[in-house]
Amino acid sequence: MTERILVTPADLLGDGVFETVDLRPSGPWLLEQHLSRLVRSAAILGLPEPDLSPVRNRVFESTGALRIIYTRGLLNMSVSPIPDGLLRERREGVRTISADLGVSIRRRPPWSISAAKSLSYASNFAARRWAARQGADDMIWLSTEGYVLEAPTASVVWLAGGELCTVSPAEAGILPGITALHLLSLAGPAGLRASERMVTLDELAAAEAIWLASSLRGLAEVTSLDGVPRARSPWTPRLLELLGFPVD
Amino acid sequence: MTERILVTPADLLGDGVFETVDLRPSGPWLLEQHLSRLVRSAAILGLPEPDLSPVRNRVFESTGALRIIYTRGLLNMSVSPIPDGLLRERREGVRTISADLGVSIRRRPPWSISAAKSLSYASNFAARRWAARQGADDMIWLSTEGYVLEAPTASVVWLAGGELCTVSPAEAGILPGITALHLLSLAGPAGLRASERMVTLDELAAAEAIWLASSLRGLAEVTSLDGVPRARSPWTPRLLELLGFPVD
Repeated sequence: MTERILVTPADLLGDGVFETVDLRPSGPWLLEQHLSRLVRSAAILGLPEPDLSPVRNRVFESTGALRIIYTRGLLNMSVSPIPDGLLRERREGVRTISADLGVSIRRRPPWSISAAKSLSYASNFAARRWAARQGADDMIWLSTEGYVLEAPTASVVWLAGGELCTVSPAEAGILPGITALHLLSLAGPAGLRASERMVTLDELAAAEAIWLASSLRGLAEVTSLDGVPRARSPWTPRLLELLGFPVD
Repeated sequence: MTERILVTPADLLGDGVFETVDLRPSGPWLLEQHLSRLVRSAAILGLPEPDLSPVRNRVFESTGALRIIYTRGLLNMSVSPIPDGLLRERREGVRTISADLGVSIRRRPPWSISAAKSLSYASNFAARRWAARQGADDMIWLSTEGYVLEAPTASVVWLAGGELCTVSPAEAGILPGITALHLLSLAGPAGLRASERMVTLDELAAAEAIWLASSLRGLAEVTSLDGVPRARSPWTPRLLELLGFPVD
């Protein structure tokens, strides 16, 4: 049964922040990183600093997806099963298309909340519905300058010349991806270098492998980009294992 | 007491639409126009067409602000007093600043929800908080081409050469303002012509009068734009009266 929450109408206006955490048998994965980002997101939205002790103190009795929601009116935790679609994308990869987001990385307004994980997610959902209508599973957003930004609900990670890369959140003005940054911190032991940088679509397409990284999917390998199929990478199971995800 | 609503966590992700209606002694003002826009907004977000009979059949026993919220999970109505700040802005006007929204009217992505009144309102609130930090009451957003778009929670209306104007929603890719469009429909009886068109900031600043139009404020006259004071217009009380708002 879906959990229900008692809210005020104002709580429904997307004016809050959230995090989604992979609940593992060992506990919530990368919880402190997610809570730190929740605090940073809250600050960007002008919310008071949340008291997160109810999250830290809670004992979770099941695995799945933990969602933490924080608005001016509430702090809520809910646990639900990980959607089958995400597990399938982790296993089988994603067909992606790229599209101009219509936003310049040099002209973000000073009040921009693009670096916060805000509850105002309607555009992200609309983008994914549009991608589905084009026959794709997901999409990769580009800035008006042609730089790769992010996916609607994931970070973009790629491997090129022995370097494991993700888009620089500070330069791109995007949400820092916790799974992506954690993966990059593990590059050394895997025999790879790590780099945060900007990349054009052509450079990305030339990479050895591309993934969408997010908490629940872990890594979903990009199996086609703008209709061009891509060979599966031997790195996908290795990196998933490094992240502690079960590999078939 | 604030009304409370029972929702699912998914209802909190801004993936829905809303309307705010002025509840007058004669009933909800321009209700059918607001309900039509709610239906159009819902279609833009891929929501099923709402059954609005509970709204049409409800008898309202007080005046104030009626908020109608529609998500994949709920259709909710709530009534609250009109905030004092809005009444003051109607009476005393608003000091506004302009700022680049960082969006081109020619590069809206195909999945854009900018013409819908979505619940994903965090950016609008952030913009108004930013304006307040600059010592302004409200702001006027500009496209990267320099065209006036809208205010975070209102339409821009102006009077120039006997013409009562608002920004063309179709050309600008913005939400069609119900109060603004209704006002323009009353221009004839007031001895004015009406026009929907694009305007640059310089042209706007040269107008005889500028207002922010929204359901609850009605019209809030722009008393300063980017720090330059503007004389009060004799048209403000006339147009407010035409819209049926009480004039002191």
